[in-house]
Amino acid sequence: MSDKPWGGRFDAPTNAFVEAFNASTHVDARMYAEDIAGSRAHATMLTAQGILSEADLKLILDGLDQVTKEIELGTFEFTIVLEDVHMNIEKRLTDIIGDAGKRLHTARSRNDQVGTDTRLYLRKRTDDLMERIKHLQVVLVKLAEEYADTVMPGFTHLQTAQPVTLGHHLLAYVEMFGRDLARFQDAKKRMNQSPLGSAALAGTTFPINREMTADLLGFDAPCANSLDAVSDRDFIMELLSSASICSIHLSRFSEELILWMSAQFGFIDLPDAFCTGSSIMPQKKNPDMPELVRGKSGRIVGALMSILMTMKSLPLAYNKDMQEDKEAIFDAYDNLEGCLRVFGDMLPGLKANKEAMHKAAGSGFSTATDLADALVRAGVPFRDAHEIVGKSVAYCIKEGIDLMQMPANVCADIDERLTLEMVQSLSVEACVAARDHTGGTAPNQVRLQCAHWLKVLAD
Amino acid sequence: MSDKPWGGRFDAPTNAFVEAFNASTHVDARMYAEDIAGSRAHATMLTAQGILSEADLKLILDGLDQVTKEIELGTFEFTIVLEDVHMNIEKRLTDIIGDAGKRLHTARSRNDQVGTDTRLYLRKRTDDLMERIKHLQVVLVKLAEEYADTVMPGFTHLQTAQPVTLGHHLLAYVEMFGRDLARFQDAKKRMNQSPLGSAALAGTTFPINREMTADLLGFDAPCANSLDAVSDRDFIMELLSSASICSIHLSRFSEELILWMSAQFGFIDLPDAFCTGSSIMPQKKNPDMPELVRGKSGRIVGALMSILMTMKSLPLAYNKDMQEDKEAIFDAYDNLEGCLRVFGDMLPGLKANKEAMHKAAGSGFSTATDLADALVRAGVPFRDAHEIVGKSVAYCIKEGIDLMQMPANVCADIDERLTLEMVQSLSVEACVAARDHTGGTAPNQVRLQCAHWLKVLAD
Amino acid sequence: MSDKPWGGRFDAPTNAFVEAFNASTHVDARMYAEDIAGSRAHATMLTAQGILSEADLKLILDGLDQVTKEIELGTFEFTIVLEDVHMNIEKRLTDIIGDAGKRLHTARSRNDQVGTDTRLYLRKRTDDLMERIKHLQVVLVKLAEEYADTVMPGFTHLQTAQPVTLGHHLLAYVEMFGRDLARFQDAKKRMNQSPLGSAALAGTTFPINREMTADLLGFDAPCANSLDAVSDRDFIMELLSSASICSIHLSRFSEELILWMSAQFGFIDLPDAFCTGSSIMPQKKNPDMPELVRGKSGRIVGALMSILMTMKSLPLAYNKDMQEDKEAIFDAYDNLEGCLRVFGDMLPGLKANKEAMHKAAGSGFSTATDLADALVRAGVPFRDAHEIVGKSVAYCIKEGIDLMQMPANVCADIDERLTLEMVQSLSVEACVAARDHTGGTAPNQVRLQCAHWLKVLAD
Amino acid sequence: MSDKPWGGRFDAPTNAFVEAFNASTHVDARMYAEDIAGSRAHATMLTAQGILSEADLKLILDGLDQVTKEIELGTFEFTIVLEDVHMNIEKRLTDIIGDAGKRLHTARSRNDQVGTDTRLYLRKRTDDLMERIKHLQVVLVKLAEEYADTVMPGFTHLQTAQPVTLGHHLLAYVEMFGRDLARFQDAKKRMNQSPLGSAALAGTTFPINREMTADLLGFDAPCANSLDAVSDRDFIMELLSSASICSIHLSRFSEELILWMSAQFGFIDLPDAFCTGSSIMPQKKNPDMPELVRGKSGRIVGALMSILMTMKSLPLAYNKDMQEDKEAIFDAYDNLEGCLRVFGDMLPGLKANKEAMHKAAGSGFSTATDLADALVRAGVPFRDAHEIVGKSVAYCIKEGIDLMQMPANVCADIDERLTLEMVQSLSVEACVAARDHTGGTAPNQVRLQCAHWLKVLAD
Repeated sequence: MSDKPWGGRFDAPTNAFVEAFNASTHVDARMYAEDIAGSRAHATMLTAQGILSEADLKLILDGLDQVTKEIELGTFEFTIVLEDVHMNIEKRLTDIIGDAGKRLHTARSRNDQVGTDTRLYLRKRTDDLMERIKHLQVVLVKLAEEYADTVMPGFTHLQTAQPVTLGHHLLAYVEMFGRDLARFQDAKKRMNQSPLGSAALAGTTFPINREMTADLLGFDAPCANSLDAVSDRDFIMELLSSASICSIHLSRFSEELILWMSAQFGFIDLPDAFCTGSSIMPQKKNPDMPELVRGKSGRIVGALMSILMTMKSLPLAYNKDMQEDKEAIFDAYDNLEGCLRVFGDMLPGLKANKEAMHKAAGSGFSTATDLADALVRAGVPFRDAHEIVGKSVAYCIKEGIDLMQMPANVCADIDERLTLEMVQSLSVEACVAARDHTGGTAPNQVRLQCAHWLKVLAD
Repeated sequence: MSDKPWGGRFDAPTNAFVEAFNASTHVDARMYAEDIAGSRAHATMLTAQGILSEADLKLILDGLDQVTKEIELGTFEFTIVLEDVHMNIEKRLTDIIGDAGKRLHTARSRNDQVGTDTRLYLRKRTDDLMERIKHLQVVLVKLAEEYADTVMPGFTHLQTAQPVTLGHHLLAYVEMFGRDLARFQDAKKRMNQSPLGSAALAGTTFPINREMTADLLGFDAPCANSLDAVSDRDFIMELLSSASICSIHLSRFSEELILWMSAQFGFIDLPDAFCTGSSIMPQKKNPDMPELVRGKSGRIVGALMSILMTMKSLPLAYNKDMQEDKEAIFDAYDNLEGCLRVFGDMLPGLKANKEAMHKAAGSGFSTATDLADALVRAGVPFRDAHEIVGKSVAYCIKEGIDLMQMPANVCADIDERLTLEMVQSLSVEACVAARDHTGGTAPNQVRLQCAHWLKVLAD
Repeated sequence: MSDKPWGGRFDAPTNAFVEAFNASTHVDARMYAEDIAGSRAHATMLTAQGILSEADLKLILDGLDQVTKEIELGTFEFTIVLEDVHMNIEKRLTDIIGDAGKRLHTARSRNDQVGTDTRLYLRKRTDDLMERIKHLQVVLVKLAEEYADTVMPGFTHLQTAQPVTLGHHLLAYVEMFGRDLARFQDAKKRMNQSPLGSAALAGTTFPINREMTADLLGFDAPCANSLDAVSDRDFIMELLSSASICSIHLSRFSEELILWMSAQFGFIDLPDAFCTGSSIMPQKKNPDMPELVRGKSGRIVGALMSILMTMKSLPLAYNKDMQEDKEAIFDAYDNLEGCLRVFGDMLPGLKANKEAMHKAAGSGFSTATDLADALVRAGVPFRDAHEIVGKSVAYCIKEGIDLMQMPANVCADIDERLTLEMVQSLSVEACVAARDHTGGTAPNQVRLQCAHWLKVLAD
Repeated sequence: MSDKPWGGRFDAPTNAFVEAFNASTHVDARMYAEDIAGSRAHATMLTAQGILSEADLKLILDGLDQVTKEIELGTFEFTIVLEDVHMNIEKRLTDIIGDAGKRLHTARSRNDQVGTDTRLYLRKRTDDLMERIKHLQVVLVKLAEEYADTVMPGFTHLQTAQPVTLGHHLLAYVEMFGRDLARFQDAKKRMNQSPLGSAALAGTTFPINREMTADLLGFDAPCANSLDAVSDRDFIMELLSSASICSIHLSRFSEELILWMSAQFGFIDLPDAFCTGSSIMPQKKNPDMPELVRGKSGRIVGALMSILMTMKSLPLAYNKDMQEDKEAIFDAYDNLEGCLRVFGDMLPGLKANKEAMHKAAGSGFSTATDLADALVRAGVPFRDAHEIVGKSVAYCIKEGIDLMQMPANVCADIDERLTLEMVQSLSVEACVAARDHTGGTAPNQVRLQCAHWLKVLAD
């Protein structure tokens, strides 16, 4: 009982199972470096404000150095009896340096401390995630350059629609990940405010300098309202929203890789090092990584749902429910980072089967739109052109031929404005080359976009 | 590479990070006992069918005994190189007994094996959960007996509505947990079918006896379709739905305990052993356990969302995405079991402040409905009676008095049918006693319900 | 103000926007028939208990007949001023029959009334859903019979694994929908208890007979605890869980139909009446229905999440938040019923391309497992057999041949136990025919299962 | 059949139920103004690029004026036969102006059209939401000014922690809504890019000018990749994430309003116009609006989950599943806007009961932290001070007195450093006044923050 930071008022010791159920040490010990950084900044500020002596400050800073060393060497023993990372470190500090350790918590509470630690830790982890996203973008842009003029079928409704270039398709994901990056940046900007000095919920009676601790810890400013500072978990919800959307992008990409690697599509091959086999079917080469990444979107969105629900209806300020926030986001971040890493490592080894893609691109009347466009250029209103091409396609399906193979008399029969020249000039290469405007699928546009992105990503 | 069960077809070794990211050993090792039980049943059946020799069977059974011992002694070394619990155990078995170990996987695949293990494991864990729920119900029924005639305010919209008995209120939760129990039972019934023998997805060419393995493992029957058997995760979704609803009940109960323990309500006290204090406010006694339990509803519902999303749109049969199922439900079950345990341990120590409850029950015009009922019994249509009492309440609020204190002339002024006798016979005791029908709040009904439940729970 | 059922105590009228925001009439008017049925049962019971006169009862029953007629003729004017279906009907009844109408709400509250209506309405809607599921099962079983021996590739990881029969594949969905049916049945059983008589939350002072109203309305019993009866929304959560799992099944089936209808698979064609075209690409035939059904899984699961979150942390008994329950489940049910209807109507027109399926089934070394099994039957331990076949597959991939084409000397080189006879006896027909045990993919088993299901579904 | 924009290729008409199930007209007709604006910009650009004649442009613009008028007058008949708002308008336009109408769809597809309409529509609705949020902030800041020095208990774990000012508490929500505003602004910035010109998925063969249409429609730029442009629903997911977090804030505020309005807290009264009564309990005044708003958080989060799930695993580019996006966000936006409106209208009428708040603030040893701080200022290490105050509180609870009433000898007995002066100088006014630093609860800080916010909000 006497080990608890709040033992004074209590008659009975904590129930043993409750002690374990209640403790967060196994989760928050990951934030030890941030906890120590926060304590260093707090002690430094207290001294500058005359609340702590220079001598105590020196003891504290040296003591925290030793604690850091012990943790990094693995000799530090975290115990759930002390509930969390904060008390484990403070207790050990006090064991090492005595009374000065007991002065460290002046003008502070675990409520502002855990808020500070979590923001610092997630700021770092978010930076790591953003690096992973950028790396994946670079990988994709390089792949897009390599396949800038590789023609493949573009799908809508998973039906062949129009030919596109593989480079263009890959760049679509570069756009998505670009927005993910921007979302994380915006979330980080909003998160980067310091709760330190908010104490339990109302601030403190000591003449603290919150701007100073914010500055020492790299925050943009102190949180403007102490009640909000300790009860706010917006940053967890916003980061998890951003992570969820990113995971949705990964699930879509995964789905496509899995489809493309099926025997039926046969569009790509993924490197052996990222696939596994079967314990019963020796011929199998399974795209395990895209599958696992696709599946993990559920886990990451589940974490978002979890924290939204936990925060729902909580009155101000701190409530114990909020302890659940860290495990949810740590797990989601670990998994998202793993997914991004795997994709960044795997994709340089992707091999596209250009012949299979080209063949598929040419089937399914994928050039029909271009025939309609040719009619429009000859003066036929678009809706009528659409109808004429529809009839042509119906004819070709019945006859088992391609649009390009339609004889002149059939063209004329369908509509007098439909000419042999129009149908014979259709080709998938012409299709993609003709879409040469901003955002179009033409190889030319793909190369422009690749150059643009490489410049952006180099900055 | 040669350690993989599927190494034969592959040129390049697995990427090291992929190996760790892909492995499930850290999660599925918990199912070692079920994996071994499944292997014992499988080998026994293979022998009975003449597919395996008696000699091999003996080696396998003895070898599995040794593996069990090693795991329980902690000397077994699980490795992620072998991906999962199945291959870790089979590899060790083969190290111990040689070729017979290599014969064990005949007519089986990891797809049916993991389905079997997971169902066996969750069957046991669901039994444990159901025991916890029943125990909590017993605790609540006993508490309800103790407080069968303790009057407290019944709330709607968190406004005082009518007096109820605390025993009646507690029994509402007994009903909820009773439905939870029934849901788990129904889910268990549906889950208790054996995938074993479905092999990878299509069954096997060996003359197996699936009824025999189902029987040996306590399943009700073999799954009727092998494709379904290996691709089905309904049981995970259904168990998590049941767990989610149960966690919602716990969140509602937690909310009430937290409210009741606030200074403003002052209705109850919870034992010290289940509360914690504050690192900065020495006077605090925080209801940490109800708060944590309330918060964990988010985590459990998050797990449900996670698996629903992961399963969405998966084609048959097995996909790697499905590996995510176990971590989600194991975590949800661990946490739900913890919540139920904490509540079962904590609630016997709940102390109700009868005076505070009684006082609150009598305020807020909680007996107004009974006054309306009295008017109805005197022949006033209910809607008119409602209007008359509404005016009476408005008068009393203005005058700062209770309904019972209304003078005769005021009664008559409001409505000639409103009598002094009617208002003076109002009391919270009369209120609760009068609701003496099936499901009503009268102490008499509470005691009947307690007796009913004790009988049900004893069976 | 005077129109409100609770106007007596209030000084100021309701804010106009609040009136609209607060009203549920646009949603709950759908339950008019159930509301009237509940009122009839309630009035009948009140009369039987001597609380209402026979004369009043007659007026009420006749008046409710007239209200029913007016609603069905479309002449009834619902108004949000009266908040909900209950008050709209009671007000109109009172306009028609006078004071007797004002007596109807004796011993009742909107809290038990809405609970009763909702359960009655959802009971009916759940019955409709179950009929739709059964119809879909019948359609699938007939299709499975038709394609009992049609060979197609069975996939795991979307890679060709082993040949299966299309009939077997379709029956996997019959199993899933069978579990859906069972879940709805179990949920319905739990839901079928009557809240009527619980009044606001505590029961009533009148000598009511709750068993009688329960009986009149087809409930199995009255809810055993009045507080629970008015605060319980388990049935909404459980029905939405069941609906969600069913929608996941539909999403999986949709995904397969979409894949199968792609040019790359070319396995099936869906009838024109269930597909749409493109406004720009005249050749397109899009599987809109499977896509829309796949997408609606999000909507249905969203409704589940919505209600779980809304119920989280609500103290007993009724809270206004709970008004949100109906719109969520009504929308989910409408959509699920639509999905089931569309699939039930569409699937009889599904045409399988047997040649394409057969061709795909034979590629990708789908018979490799059977070669391993042959080796096992010749005495090779399974793990060694697996390795030998792995090497064979690797050889065949390099040489661009099938397993069946391996020359004798290559067989011997790989392993002396691998014989030419073994490789030459491989065929997809042999593969599926050999899996002739409970749950296996053999045509024989498919036909047995079809017969079994037709019998079950006929009952 | 001939009414369909894609009828040419099809043999059989659409199934009647499918037609209704598939149509989006009932949902997307709300975007008619944006659809027409998009068409005007598109036609103008086509003309500028020489693709459309000036004469046709004039016809189109005049025709669209007429269509607008018809819709606004209510004479326009939307039909589900034409599937969606786009085809309904184009068909009517063509009826009015003939062939020119058939030329409008040149170089466009419904895929880029619906993306454009939805972004335009949501841009406007997001602006409306942001105005509502700002208005609510202004209301709260004014309330905070009014109650800048009203002392109330600050809670953690719903236990009295330290006194705070009501103004400070209200400003915490101003901070939250400020972050909501910033999130919507960031999301809007990312969304404000034009899909127009992406056509079906790959761009078009016509020499369009996407920068021009983007500019005409107030977009910042064209989407940079046509495949991404038509398959991207990030903006829906991000707006719904922002809406969800905002709804969580509203749920927390609602919870507090409900608690504060309970008889047990008695801290506030809400205006009659925003409350309702009971049909059975005439004395009730229920905080319906906060309850409904709290409940709607489930609905809004449900919409987020819905769209995340629907988008999961969708291959590029457009899939019909995505049609589900609009109904989800339209419903969420309607409801969030309603919640914000109700709160903005209701809160100016909130009346705080200052006496009740003050009394509650002084109980529960809320000044204990300040006593610890006084000891620290006297040189006692914080942890020791905490222990000393803990013992003092325990003593006072046992004796039933306040800290301020502790006699000198008891102080000395507990610890010699604890003085009578320390305990006697405790007061809730001193408590809040002393927390006079950035973010602290002192009335002085509250007024500074109010001034700051009024300035920010006036800009």
